[in-house]
Amino acid sequence: GAELLKQERDNSNIPVERLSEFLFTRETLDRQDQILKILIADKVFDKSQNYFDGRLERFKTALARQKRLSQLSKKHKWTADEYQMASELISEPGPYGLHVSMFLITLRDQGTPEQHRLFLEKAEKYEYIGCYAQTELGHGSNVRGLETTATWNSDDKTFTIHSPHLTASKWWIGSLGRTANHAVVMAQLIIDGKAYGPHPFVVQIRDLHTHEALENIYVGDIGPKFGTMDNGYLLLNHVKIPHVNMLAKFSSVDPKTNKYVKPASASLVYGTLTWVRSTIVLQSGGVLARGVTIATRYAAVRRQFQDRDAKEWETGENQVLNYTMVQIRLLPLLAATYALHFTGRGMMALYQENQKKMAADAGKLASTSRGPSPEELFPSTDLLADLHATSCGLKALASTTAAEGLEVCRRACGGHGYSSFSGIGSWYADYLPTTTWEGDNYMLTQQVARYLLKSARAVLKGTASDNDTSRIFKSFLSRRDMGAAFDVLGQDEDIVAAFAWRTSFLTFEALKHRDEEKGSWNSLLVDFWRLSTAHSQYLIVKNFWEALQTERVATELGEETAALMRKLFRLYALHTLEREASEFFSSSAVTVRQIQLARTKTVMKLLEEIRPHAVRLVDAWNFPDWQLDSSLGRYDGKVYEDLFRRASELNPLNALTIDPYPDSGILIKKNEIETFRSKL
Amino acid sequence: GAELLKQERDNSNIPVERLSEFLFTRETLDRQDQILKILIADKVFDKSQNYFDGRLERFKTALARQKRLSQLSKKHKWTADEYQMASELISEPGPYGLHVSMFLITLRDQGTPEQHRLFLEKAEKYEYIGCYAQTELGHGSNVRGLETTATWNSDDKTFTIHSPHLTASKWWIGSLGRTANHAVVMAQLIIDGKAYGPHPFVVQIRDLHTHEALENIYVGDIGPKFGTMDNGYLLLNHVKIPHVNMLAKFSSVDPKTNKYVKPASASLVYGTLTWVRSTIVLQSGGVLARGVTIATRYAAVRRQFQDRDAKEWETGENQVLNYTMVQIRLLPLLAATYALHFTGRGMMALYQENQKKMAADAGKLASTSRGPSPEELFPSTDLLADLHATSCGLKALASTTAAEGLEVCRRACGGHGYSSFSGIGSWYADYLPTTTWEGDNYMLTQQVARYLLKSARAVLKGTASDNDTSRIFKSFLSRRDMGAAFDVLGQDEDIVAAFAWRTSFLTFEALKHRDEEKGSWNSLLVDFWRLSTAHSQYLIVKNFWEALQTERVATELGEETAALMRKLFRLYALHTLEREASEFFSSSAVTVRQIQLARTKTVMKLLEEIRPHAVRLVDAWNFPDWQLDSSLGRYDGKVYEDLFRRASELNPLNALTIDPYPDSGILIKKNEIETFRSKL
Ligand SMILES: Cc1cc2nc3c(=O)[nH]c(=O)nc-3n(C[C@H](O)[C@H](O)[C@H](O)COP(=O)(O)OP(=O)(O)OC[C@H]3O[C@@H](n4cnc5c(N)ncnc54)[C@H](O)[C@@H]3O)c2cc1C
Ligand SMILES: Cc1cc2nc3c(=O)[nH]c(=O)nc-3n(C[C@H](O)[C@H](O)[C@H](O)COP(=O)(O)OP(=O)(O)OC[C@H]3O[C@@H](n4cnc5c(N)ncnc54)[C@H](O)[C@@H]3O)c2cc1C
Repeated sequence: GAELLKQERDNSNIPVERLSEFLFTRETLDRQDQILKILIADKVFDKSQNYFDGRLERFKTALARQKRLSQLSKKHKWTADEYQMASELISEPGPYGLHVSMFLITLRDQGTPEQHRLFLEKAEKYEYIGCYAQTELGHGSNVRGLETTATWNSDDKTFTIHSPHLTASKWWIGSLGRTANHAVVMAQLIIDGKAYGPHPFVVQIRDLHTHEALENIYVGDIGPKFGTMDNGYLLLNHVKIPHVNMLAKFSSVDPKTNKYVKPASASLVYGTLTWVRSTIVLQSGGVLARGVTIATRYAAVRRQFQDRDAKEWETGENQVLNYTMVQIRLLPLLAATYALHFTGRGMMALYQENQKKMAADAGKLASTSRGPSPEELFPSTDLLADLHATSCGLKALASTTAAEGLEVCRRACGGHGYSSFSGIGSWYADYLPTTTWEGDNYMLTQQVARYLLKSARAVLKGTASDNDTSRIFKSFLSRRDMGAAFDVLGQDEDIVAAFAWRTSFLTFEALKHRDEEKGSWNSLLVDFWRLSTAHSQYLIVKNFWEALQTERVATELGEETAALMRKLFRLYALHTLEREASEFFSSSAVTVRQIQLARTKTVMKLLEEIRPHAVRLVDAWNFPDWQLDSSLGRYDGKVYEDLFRRASELNPLNALTIDPYPDSGILIKKNEIETFRSKL
Repeated sequence: GAELLKQERDNSNIPVERLSEFLFTRETLDRQDQILKILIADKVFDKSQNYFDGRLERFKTALARQKRLSQLSKKHKWTADEYQMASELISEPGPYGLHVSMFLITLRDQGTPEQHRLFLEKAEKYEYIGCYAQTELGHGSNVRGLETTATWNSDDKTFTIHSPHLTASKWWIGSLGRTANHAVVMAQLIIDGKAYGPHPFVVQIRDLHTHEALENIYVGDIGPKFGTMDNGYLLLNHVKIPHVNMLAKFSSVDPKTNKYVKPASASLVYGTLTWVRSTIVLQSGGVLARGVTIATRYAAVRRQFQDRDAKEWETGENQVLNYTMVQIRLLPLLAATYALHFTGRGMMALYQENQKKMAADAGKLASTSRGPSPEELFPSTDLLADLHATSCGLKALASTTAAEGLEVCRRACGGHGYSSFSGIGSWYADYLPTTTWEGDNYMLTQQVARYLLKSARAVLKGTASDNDTSRIFKSFLSRRDMGAAFDVLGQDEDIVAAFAWRTSFLTFEALKHRDEEKGSWNSLLVDFWRLSTAHSQYLIVKNFWEALQTERVATELGEETAALMRKLFRLYALHTLEREASEFFSSSAVTVRQIQLARTKTVMKLLEEIRPHAVRLVDAWNFPDWQLDSSLGRYDGKVYEDLFRRASELNPLNALTIDPYPDSGILIKKNEIETFRSKL
């Protein structure tokens, strides 16, 4: 394998390091190197038994690692980003996962200064270790349907938190199973018999000293599953908490009047959700890139069959990466990793920009009484609505692309892809829930469609504000009768325009079904899902294209590499177009002839042109071997040696000699596993 | 949950039992009941800790179960089918897996009577426990590239089996890791320095008494992975075996002359492969049906959100099965389960028929000298070529459909789909390798394309024999210029014809690329894959349709149920057509208008019509709860109670109290797992 990868690297002159810097910046890469060194030096982070350990062992090891990580973080004064970087290098879900993310974020974003002192400070010091308990056995997507209640007791100024039925049991709550001593519990606020919807409450659930569940609290681990660590259930039997435990930044109960105090602006809550989803989009490129890196390197090392048209004098087998059937599976995904990365970057930039505008608007907002639709009052909240819809659609498409792409990569590795040592399987399993949490991907498409319909109505009425969505709708309406005539095979910007056209077409079709034909919402869900997917594909294509228009690209990467980036853009876009062909031509965005040419000529040509650079293009993602933990994806190509070493030297099962005969009652003749383990 | 499923069953009058009988026959169902009772009564088959156990525990339990199973099989004198039935009810890969299948089959099919006495008889008594060792670290798909050698020693009439490099190590071999004491080793036969390709040799690898590896044999488990049990590696260092250990039914070495004796007919080897693949097709329907059963029942129990267009007086949440976005994911798969079942049945019938013809031809065959292409001499071998191609294409499509469909089912369950208790995840993981073994699904498509191209050439030359493939090609050629004009939305047989048309169109396109334009084989692989998929979809549609044409359907099921079956047929076919739209209209098999109508009207209408019968249609698959082992898929709908019971009562992790604080060196404060286990 080593020579093959060397050859691959020699046959392309893509400047890998410059490309990595372009993607991540020099500082980030250096920081990662330093952190990696610290982690590798520490015995507790040794990964050699990871794939062998069972659930219990994995839990214990993960706990030990998380403890050590937080000690290291303190010692080296890591920022949140650096802590995150270390976690990504370790690459396993850990029992502090939800404490570090959702528990701290919720306390910070939804707590008052007093609550920060009371809860957040202790949480940052890991005196309180918490989780975010929203989902119940009976309700996940439908948050308004939650059954846990928080009843206000006006006499002693407390809340009683209660789980009225089995289905009200909190479920799936990360870090809750064995670890957390506190929870942010989302519960229906009830004042004087009236329900005000779900609100967040801080509830202590385990004793700070004994770590046993407190009275009237029934808490535990929900059992084995795909992904994450330490998910728990929680039932509360009339548990009383003080007034200050309701997180009160947005809404609260006035203890004097016993009245509900409404939130200042719903769009502020939007903000956190948008941020979380944008982060998922940004990460999706890297998530997929791990699988693509492993599969591409392996496909360059794996040789199987002679080429069928090989000349007689040719000997030796073909690298499977040379087969077009392997290329068509891997290279569009390689292109997708870049597309998603640039899209995530674009989203984050928009988000930051908007946060600034919001801050500027905040003064004005405070001085007006809150109207029914703040969207029409301030550009920033209007932009936020667009951004929110964008983040929903892209979260769904990006996480689906990454998850399904990982499985394509794994399968492209043939038999060896099934081995845990491929490093793809467990990574896939850990990532997979991302398609369901933070909004089930199918559910999110309804929000996107709702926004697009609303925008389309506004455009028709002439009340739409100026943003990208309304612009593409207007342009579509002005040319709808003439037709499109985009040169998708010749002009890159025409590809973007064709994707915009298809979104617009589908939006106005859906609008017709809903507003004119009065189709029920339910009957249109499938159309909405198609629409949202189409729109999100447009956004990715557009973001990728825009990223390549900047000066930086040619100056930092050189013209040759910039040209290759444009080929990746075309491959991503045209491969998508070809897969969704029927929507493209039924909207007349392109002709049948163009699709046939794209399929049989252009895409195949792009595969051929990108192929020689494939290994360098994945190298640029810069995953250390330690992070990938993959026999197939090793940088040095020593695939077989590593598979063999792990199977024979690291594998405890081989220390077991069994009795194989059915009539013998003995199962194990000789068990030397403990001796084996102690020698590792 | 219980009331909801009762309601579902009350709202449909599909005769579930009659439908089950139609699918499986009364005898099979009764047999299954009896066997189920025997298994449930036996403590060793208790499944309650299955999802919790780690790799080692699972291995030990599986070994104990396999021993017990073979004892029961002896005691009750089970046939191979009954043993298989019991295995399916237990539903876990076991360490005897490959012994029972490939080891015995290979000895039987490829051994001489003498070898049957020497090896097969002992193997049937489990004195020899074996495996089938073909794949190596470096070669899987390309069997001719195997590196293990079997060198003939003319002096002492033995073979020396040897692994010359690390990549020659046998790898992935089921039942070899810890269990087998014998292996059928595929090795390159070498006589007098000349290589004759891979042949099967029986090699003893472990001591029959101590069960330790024999001298010069390095054997072990390859480590954790998706699916199957006890996969091993094997390196042989110049191991000598007697002449009789080369399985010699087809080819052999003459010990007197030291000459190679050629196989009588290559098509006989074809036979076993075709049978194995047909079995995979037949099983795929049931494999997928497990996931569909679980997801459909759960979607009928799960309620989430009110319908968006609900009237004010309506209360209560909607069953998620009522959402069209859930229906479009599940109901076409429900239709696919039936489609695959009937297709598998059709394949098996053809196979049996052909076996009879082969037997009849055998006499004739023996009397002629073997020509270069026996296909042209005997109808049965010609039919076999067709059947072989069919089995390749259908194996690929059916196993891909089942595997990917299971994941769709799992995801349709939302968050709870991630729990091991859903019963879909582990079933999926165990099944998944079917897409790679017995011919990697992508590789198989090349064989199908090769056959179709060959048939098309024969049709053009006028030398084609009369079979279904040549008939559809001829019919296509005769009408190609006129166009198709199929009434796919009105006439069921026109749907079949449209699928045939698309296959034919793609075949002649591919032929043009290959023969006229001289496209390289490699440049056409993607087209071949599309072609094979198209052809296999045609075969499924045709088989499903034909199955519904028989008298039996209406008489045994009643007209109403027969009509529902035809709706399932249309749903499967039109949903496929709509997903592959661009191929259908670019071949002019249908118009763009028809596709739009299929998509927006016909398919949506079918979903609505099939929806009320969904639960009964999955009930007819007749999976006992014990087999499904799923909280979400319980027949009685008690989903939440069961999830909770497993998480709280059966879950060992909850007997562990940890110390959660990062600065404390203690991990576990209290470990009561053993006490917990002992109480189970
Ligand atoms: C590994 C993991 C970790 C998690 N961690 C946490 C955590 O720390 N804290 C927490 O609070 N939660 C957590 N969750 C829960 C998660 O947020 C929910 O599972 C998720 O929101 C999906 O909700 P659900 O399970 O209720 O799905 P459901 O809403 O029940 O969905 C079931 C199915 O119905 C469909 N469906 C539902 N409603 C509609 C509709 N109106 N129209 C069309 N289709 C519909 C869905 O698409 C889906 O296919 C976690 C989940 C997982 C899997
Ligand atoms: C769980 C499991 C159990 C198994 N059990 C056994 C067993 O008991 N005994 C045994 O002998 N084997 C066993 N196998 C091995 C199995 O049969 C092989 O893995 C399978 O044949 C695939 O071969 P491969 O791994 O060499 O894939 P490869 O051929 O290396 O394929 C790698 C990739 O290259 C592609 N590719 C390869 N050649 C071409 C080409 N010419 N054109 C286009 N694309 C190409 C493939 O599609 C694939 O994507 C098992 C495998 C698994 C996963």
